Amino acid sequence: MLEEIREQPAALERTLRASLQPARQLARALAARKPKHVVLVARGTSDNAAQFGRYLIEITTGIPAALAAPSVTTLYRSRLDWRDALVVAISQSGESTDTNIVLEQARKAGAVTVGITNESSSTLAGLAQHVFPVRAQRERSVAATKTYTSQLMALYVLARTLGATIPTDDLARLPDWTQAALSLESEIRARAERYRFMERAAVVGRGLNYANAFEFALKLMETCYVVAERFSGADFLHGPIALVEPGFPLFVFAPAGVTWNGARRLLETLDSLRADVLLITDLSNAPAAKHSNALVIPRKLTRASLRPADLFSPIPYVVPAQLFTASLAACKGRDPDRPRTLTKVTRTL
Amino acid sequence: MLEEIREQPAALERTLRASLQPARQLARALAARKPKHVVLVARGTSDNAAQFGRYLIEITTGIPAALAAPSVTTLYRSRLDWRDALVVAISQSGESTDTNIVLEQARKAGAVTVGITNESSSTLAGLAQHVFPVRAQRERSVAATKTYTSQLMALYVLARTLGATIPTDDLARLPDWTQAALSLESEIRARAERYRFMERAAVVGRGLNYANAFEFALKLMETCYVVAERFSGADFLHGPIALVEPGFPLFVFAPAGVTWNGARRLLETLDSLRADVLLITDLSNAPAAKHSNALVIPRKLTRASLRPADLFSPIPYVVPAQLFTASLAACKGRDPDRPRTLTKVTRTL
Repeated sequence: MLEEIREQPAALERTLRASLQPARQLARALAARKPKHVVLVARGTSDNAAQFGRYLIEITTGIPAALAAPSVTTLYRSRLDWRDALVVAISQSGESTDTNIVLEQARKAGAVTVGITNESSSTLAGLAQHVFPVRAQRERSVAATKTYTSQLMALYVLARTLGATIPTDDLARLPDWTQAALSLESEIRARAERYRFMERAAVVGRGLNYANAFEFALKLMETCYVVAERFSGADFLHGPIALVEPGFPLFVFAPAGVTWNGARRLLETLDSLRADVLLITDLSNAPAAKHSNALVIPRKLTRASLRPADLFSPIPYVVPAQLFTASLAACKGRDPDRPRTLTKVTRTL
Repeated sequence: MLEEIREQPAALERTLRASLQPARQLARALAARKPKHVVLVARGTSDNAAQFGRYLIEITTGIPAALAAPSVTTLYRSRLDWRDALVVAISQSGESTDTNIVLEQARKAGAVTVGITNESSSTLAGLAQHVFPVRAQRERSVAATKTYTSQLMALYVLARTLGATIPTDDLARLPDWTQAALSLESEIRARAERYRFMERAAVVGRGLNYANAFEFALKLMETCYVVAERFSGADFLHGPIALVEPGFPLFVFAPAGVTWNGARRLLETLDSLRADVLLITDLSNAPAAKHSNALVIPRKLTRASLRPADLFSPIPYVVPAQLFTASLAACKGRDPDRPRTLTKVTRTL
């Protein structure tokens, strides 16, 4: 897992390069018929990437976007009216049964279809009209890392194709920023030690980093067997905050930008409840509350032109989370590459 | 809380009666312009009702439906293209800041707007073009119960207005079925005792009962301070199942119908992992696995005409979950009406 985490800058670069050609092809297809809404369909880690895609597309293009509920199609056999939709299926293996059934139905129903997958000869790649290849190479660890960030890269290119202002120059700088985030490895390894006996936790993220909260929690569940909840900062205040007692561990994504004010207020509340908070931020002057620690990600993209300010944060921000779970799994004596009960390809209906 | 749980049959009946008139008015408005997609916006328990509405609408009408991501509008200030959308805001108080901002923007952007709220003189009721009143009367417990099931009732009427085949005769029988589910109270109170020291758990539901998994988990978090995860049966297999060790407590919604096969297979896997499972089902002959117990809900609506078979299960099915959390809170010596840190109306952006 750790090795694959370190491979991410190269995987991101390859994926960006490989997606420019299918993006041009898709742009031509969409020139004739602009979609009225976007539906993303996936499972597991890919579903977390889909969650990111959903926010990215709505924020940068104004086109309503949503995650599919596969059972509506696979079990209830409802035939959705997808004539005006762009349907995007995301899967590492391209062999996720339910994802593929939804994609196939969407195509039959008249949607424009896109596949994002590592496997160009997979069933998914055959079903989709447009394929964005994820060039992360074979992933050996059951816990996906480089596939997730490469899927995010493909989604930036997709949003750009849908009209978002996302300069490829900025995307080309993301491998560098990811490399900078990787420099936190030894700091994180040292810090993970104190979480050795953590059995439950909550991860909070908002907006573009909401998906990272899901991904961090999933990694904690899969590789460290920590019962890790995941919430948006707002949803957390509508009930789950009652969980927080002194010492309760929370992980909070808190980048500079429009979500910062809410994060700051949440941190104040958590501090008053004496929660044990680990912040992931690029604000080196983030208020060091009494009970909080911060992992500060070096800033690389600070051009004034960036709107919103956290637009490019999700890829570098998930890196400390990946490093943390790999380190914690090691502390706990678990093999993160082979979690109990799981296999690399899961087939569900 | 317990008192309000018991008031549900009457609240459901009142809410059904009160929604027929706004439904007729909405039907007239939609005759001129049928929405191409539906967006539901809410927070907390109301967001779980929205999750139900999303499945119900897609399954019974074929119109794509999704939950809104409020931060896209409130924080990122993206202006979504909602011209072809029906936007449905759900809130007990009608004073949820972010929900109201989204509804207001949607109306400005040309959407048809619906509000579902207990308070007819609230901000939400003023903003929405069509208001479905929730006649659950004042809810005194911070943990919402009768509001949730009454919101579900309003959503059935809404789906019917959008073209679903949902006879009002069947809806009129739901208070009766809910009463039958309430008859499990003493059995559940006795059973809750053994969960006295449970600190973490997972709740699994699928399709129309996926929202109930969220609602059960939220109630466990709010009133019993149990770190309760919530998953669809399929998502659970894509990673989180690694959490399950012998004795790990799971609560599974397993109604008759299209989701049963998947639930059965999941239960076999959980049994082989020696998990501690409590099933909520209406199948009195559900396989009594070695490590499972079942709460069997009396069946009331078994007419052959029902498609899908679990169409009306969500309201009666959440009742045992509500009774369980109220009982468990009592066992743990907590006051479920006044959870720590929470207030009845939460305002977030």
